[in-house]
This record gives sequence, structure tokens and C-alpha cells, in this order.
Amino acid sequence: MNDAETTVRELKDLVLAFSRERAWEQFHRPKDLGVALACEVGEVLEHFRYKTDDEVAAALADPANIRELAHELADCLWVVLRLSDVCGIDLAASLREKVELAALKYPVEKAYGRPDKYTRYQEPPGGTADA
Amino acid sequence: MNDAETTVRELKDLVLAFSRERAWEQFHRPKDLGVALACEVGEVLEHFRYKTDDEVAAALADPANIRELAHELADCLWVVLRLSDVCGIDLAASLREKVELAALKYPVEKAYGRPDKYTRYQEPPGGTADA
Amino acid sequence: MNDAETTVRELKDLVLAFSRERAWEQFHRPKDLGVALACEVGEVLEHFRYKTDDEVAAALADPANIRELAHELADCLWVVLRLSDVCGIDLAASLREKVELAALKYPVEKAYGRPDKYTRYQEPPGGTADA
Amino acid sequence: MNDAETTVRELKDLVLAFSRERAWEQFHRPKDLGVALACEVGEVLEHFRYKTDDEVAAALADPANIRELAHELADCLWVVLRLSDVCGIDLAASLREKVELAALKYPVEKAYGRPDKYTRYQEPPGGTADA
Repeated sequence: MNDAETTVRELKDLVLAFSRERAWEQFHRPKDLGVALACEVGEVLEHFRYKTDDEVAAALADPANIRELAHELADCLWVVLRLSDVCGIDLAASLREKVELAALKYPVEKAYGRPDKYTRYQEPPGGTADA
Repeated sequence: MNDAETTVRELKDLVLAFSRERAWEQFHRPKDLGVALACEVGEVLEHFRYKTDDEVAAALADPANIRELAHELADCLWVVLRLSDVCGIDLAASLREKVELAALKYPVEKAYGRPDKYTRYQEPPGGTADA
Repeated sequence: MNDAETTVRELKDLVLAFSRERAWEQFHRPKDLGVALACEVGEVLEHFRYKTDDEVAAALADPANIRELAHELADCLWVVLRLSDVCGIDLAASLREKVELAALKYPVEKAYGRPDKYTRYQEPPGGTADA
Repeated sequence: MNDAETTVRELKDLVLAFSRERAWEQFHRPKDLGVALACEVGEVLEHFRYKTDDEVAAALADPANIRELAHELADCLWVVLRLSDVCGIDLAASLREKVELAALKYPVEKAYGRPDKYTRYQEPPGGTADA
């Protein structure tokens, strides 16, 4: 399996089979998968805390650290795949749709080279952008 | 685009193109993408907080709520795709590898129907499983 | 030290002294403390994932589990104390202010017995509440 | 209310009264409060994403941004107070205990000026530190 050849559905099926073999589908309520996702993201962030960007880059030059991070990201993806599958959500279609919406919020001419949230440049004069 | 036909690489390229058009690659340091992932997961969890599992199920019977959740999950996937891409991580290969490792930690005969962490049934007699 | 007698400043000073003794203040940049907070919250959530509310309640009837959870919550508090301290934020004053603002958003007569976000009952007819 | 004079119990009582007035205690199951905490931390992290440490420092030189961050931190504290209260956890005692345990894991002579996790310097020769 590799990114160039593997479809999202094949990945969904891989983790679905793992759950079915262990009778774990019963635990995969949406809320619990949401909780699991937050746990996995915490483990991703362990790779970054108390490190400057340069220190992160240095650490990630070591293949052993990249492999660890790859496993943490795989865990996040695993949960996203399960959560979308139990909710009947097509991830590729949703991402495409979200990218199209983001393109409207972040038009190239306004967003070019700016990391700000879109509310910063959509504000009417004198207006405030509520969180 | 849909899960049955779209490869992970195609999704990576979709969001990479979005970043390139806006000159946003400069902001996509691994640590910042990790931070972004935690932000997006918080938005996923907004759909579940202070709701019982039954209330979540009822809410997700409404296509409008499923669509909102689909967009939040798409945002999480977006960040996972970017973070793996900037780190040169192949997600499908990493997930396959992680599933194989998980199969060793959670053998079917021990894990069947049990949601516990593997440390629960790997503990030696009298031992303690440290987090 | 106990909640009835200990002030927030005493707790801030406890963890500040710990950092000073180890020359750790240099690592306590606000962003890193934010990252650390997400890590610690992930560990709190480990206590809840794949457990129903009844199973959580049963687990928390065991003092050993309560003590573990207490330590995870203490870690979250630790980071909140450090982050507020490095930013010069008075937590008690901020909480009091936030509670007053919340009382405006969630007036008793509208919010009584309802877990919804305030946007649900503030929406004008036909309006939409944006996330 | 301010950090120098306000005890943790007074803060717990402040947010408990808010919940009681609105009959919200019924929603404050431990798992839901854990979910809420992850949501609030996501909002804290919004202040840091795609910003370098210097850009964060510049933003936090603006009192309006500090006030926003103070409110997000107050929200985190609010949830930590509620979660500890519903579980009968004394936060000050737990933090004191956790600090004492951390002092054993991170002895000054080993941890001085080092941000590493304790497992890095506790490993036996040839040993591995499992996550």
C-alpha cells in the first residue's frame, strides 16, 4: 500500500476489517471516536512540545523520529477513517467540497502570503469578527 | 472525487495546490500543522459535547449535521495530509504498518470484544502498566 | 495544600518554583505551553475513550482511577497556571469576567436545562449561526 | 476576585453556582467535560497557529489579544474546575502531589536546562523508552 495507488476506500476497509475481526465496531460510537482522535492528536503533539521549529526539523532529520511521527499520524488517520465510515461520510468528496468553500473564503488575491483567518480581511469597516 | 476512486496522493495534491496558489507552504511548519490539527479536532468535538450517544445519533440523522461534521472531518484530514506531505510520510504505507503492529498488540483471541488498552492484558502478574 | 485554603497565586508559585529550579522557564513560550496543554488533555481523555458514561462512572468509583485522573487534571492545571503566568494573566479575575459574559449569553430563563450553544436561541428568524 | 486572594474552592463554587442556576449539572458527566476541555484547548491554540514565537509575542503585546487569550484560558480552567468538582478531586492537593512526583522524575541535577521527557535520561543502557 502506498499513497500513489491506494484509495481512501481501501484504507477505510483496512481498518474496518481490523475492527470486525475483534468485534470492536460496538465501541466505535461517533463521540468515542472523537475522543480517540483528540487522544491521538495529543500524541502527535508530543513530538513538537518544548521544541523550536529548528529543533523539530533537526529531530525529523532522523528517520527513527519520522517513523514514530508517521505512526502517530497513521493513528489519527485511522480514527478519521473509522469516524467517517460509521457516519457514512465520503472523505474525498467532503475534502473536495471543503477546498472549494475555502477557495471562496480565501481568494488567492486576498490570501496570498497571509496566514490570517479569513475573518481578518472580510470584516466590514468598523466591524468585529466574533470567534 | 470519491473514496472509492481517489488515492491518498490525489488528496495530498489537492491541498498542496491550494497552499501553493496562496504561497502558504511557508506557514506549514510541522509544529504549526500539529497545532492546527488540535484546533480542527476541537471543532469536531463541538458536535458531541454535552450530548449523549443517543442524542449524537439523533443529530446525525439530520443530513445538515452530517454535512457539517463531514466538513470538520475534512479539515482534520486536510491537516493530516499536509503534515504528512511536508514530512515526506507515506500515509497508506504508515497506516498499513501501524495496523500490522496493532495486530500484534491486539491479537484477536485476546482483544475480541474488549475495548481495553493492550497493556491491560499484557501485564505480568503483579506488574503495573505505566501510561 | 487544599482547594479550600490555597490561592491561585500559591499554585502559580508552586509550579513557577519547579521551573526555576530546573531552568525551564526558557522553554515556556506561550505556543509551547499551548501544545503541552493539548498533550495533557489527550491524557485526560484516555480515561474516557471507548467507555460509556456508566462505565466511566464505574471506573471512577475505584480510588486508584480517581487518583490517576486527578494527576492528569493536575497536569492540565499546571500548564494553565504556567501559560497564564508567562502571559501576565490573572486567572481568577479572567474567570470572573468570563462568567459574567457567559451570564449575558446564557440568561437563566433561556438556558435553563438546555445544553445548546447560545447561538441556538440567539439566532434571528431565518438567520444562520456560523461556527 | 484575583489570583492573590482567591482560593480554588471559591472558583469551583463560582462555576458550580453558574451551573446550578441553569440546571446544567445534569450535562456535566466526566466524559462530556473531557470533551469540552478539548474544545476549549482548541480555541486557545487558535491564538498560536501559523504564528512563529516572535509573532505570538508581538500579538500578545496587544492588550486586546491578551484579554482574548485570558478568556480562552478561563474557559479551560472553568472546565477543569467542573471536572474536578464532579469527580470529588481536590486540585490543589493533586497538583502538590503531582509536583512532588515530577520532582522525583526530573531531579534538578539531571533535568537542569533540558526540556526532554524524563524517559530520555532514565533509560537503562540498551533500553528503550516506550511512548
